[in-house]
Amino acid sequence: MLAGYDTSAAPLQPAVVLVRPQLGANIGAAARAMLNFGMIDLRLVAPRDGWPNPDAGPSASGADAVLAQSRVFGTIAEATADCHLVIATAQRPRDLTKLVHTPRSAAAAVRAEPTRSALLFGPERTGLLTDELALAGAILSVPTNPDFGSLNLAQAVLLVAYEWASAADPGARLNAYDGPASAASVDALVDHVERELERAGYFRVITREAATRRTLRNLLTRPAFSEKEVRTLRGVISTLTGERLRARGGEP
Amino acid sequence: MLAGYDTSAAPLQPAVVLVRPQLGANIGAAARAMLNFGMIDLRLVAPRDGWPNPDAGPSASGADAVLAQSRVFGTIAEATADCHLVIATAQRPRDLTKLVHTPRSAAAAVRAEPTRSALLFGPERTGLLTDELALAGAILSVPTNPDFGSLNLAQAVLLVAYEWASAADPGARLNAYDGPASAASVDALVDHVERELERAGYFRVITREAATRRTLRNLLTRPAFSEKEVRTLRGVISTLTGERLRARGGEP
Repeated sequence: MLAGYDTSAAPLQPAVVLVRPQLGANIGAAARAMLNFGMIDLRLVAPRDGWPNPDAGPSASGADAVLAQSRVFGTIAEATADCHLVIATAQRPRDLTKLVHTPRSAAAAVRAEPTRSALLFGPERTGLLTDELALAGAILSVPTNPDFGSLNLAQAVLLVAYEWASAADPGARLNAYDGPASAASVDALVDHVERELERAGYFRVITREAATRRTLRNLLTRPAFSEKEVRTLRGVISTLTGERLRARGGEP
Repeated sequence: MLAGYDTSAAPLQPAVVLVRPQLGANIGAAARAMLNFGMIDLRLVAPRDGWPNPDAGPSASGADAVLAQSRVFGTIAEATADCHLVIATAQRPRDLTKLVHTPRSAAAAVRAEPTRSALLFGPERTGLLTDELALAGAILSVPTNPDFGSLNLAQAVLLVAYEWASAADPGARLNAYDGPASAASVDALVDHVERELERAGYFRVITREAATRRTLRNLLTRPAFSEKEVRTLRGVISTLTGERLRARGGEP
């Protein structure tokens, strides 16, 4: 049992997802920063030096329980499969058509979600790749000094955890929106669209395939479609595409 | 000259006063945290291992200029002689008849002062003594997990510096998103989708046409797609639908 905050009363605290973390000491320091503000759901994607890592414990300074119950995944998609709102940190977001949060507005967004959220943090040296940022529904950027902006991993986690703990309950949402679909559902939607576009030759007639794929992924992930909306969209695609035509032999 | 923020425009940024700091590495990390948020006025009171300290530079990770222009004092009174508002950090303030700030309210108080303020941080192991807290005009306590509340020195400095910088522009949002498309563009997108769905017989096979049209319109308007995204989506639809097939005579 973890000391401190009654975690049963906060079942929907966000998952902190460290993507390809390099140093065990930074994983431990991140765990400490989380527990300082009552966050316990630590997930690791492909930690560079494997897991467990003997360097993590000392820098956790007592937050060993967070390390002990952390989970390791092979991909971001696996790590966030149960998360509906995925927010990715980026030092200087560019060329992204996504909402860019401050830590404070991200905390408010997480608090406002009735379902689980994930906060992604990239490797110490490089941060998340552009294609990894494209997987997220929104971006989080800490507004640091433009010429000295590099926060270490645990400090970035600390600020986000601090804001999460500081965020007061913003109150019930006043609309009928039933919350965003899981990342897995949205991934399947993106795959479905890409598959049909490939079949239709879309990527043969455009000039910048990678950029177009990224644009597509961005525009399908950013809206935070609900599960019902994802199902509707998939029905739309199936209707519009050869699935219908193929069924009656009309597809070349 | 320090890179980044125009410090001449913020002549009254608070002094960060580290009282009897123990480890040079923590002094360096505190300097880094300060500069991350544009703070440069570092003052040291009786650092345990003297000053300069060779362990400080590496952990400053480039914030060497903050270390280089730091000043050393013998007492808190000397270090804060030019400061009008003195706020002392304490992990668990007790028996004090003083205002206890959060980092956020402390930042607001500092911003509201027309004169220079000082933020005091105690030694790593013990924090400030009760008699030292008594010297301050107010207390700052970070609301951490009651059972796991110990922040390291640089992390405490980081949170205070972050709040100080955030207080300058609490609404700051770094938004790379290029704004929503016009209603006319979105309407045209919805019409395009509906027209193609009608052509494909979509509304013949579903049971609740009006509700489905509403769902479609909701899911296409809510995301606030940009103009570029609307164009991309329309290209996608054209590709997926009979516009391609019709052109070569494949449409019934």
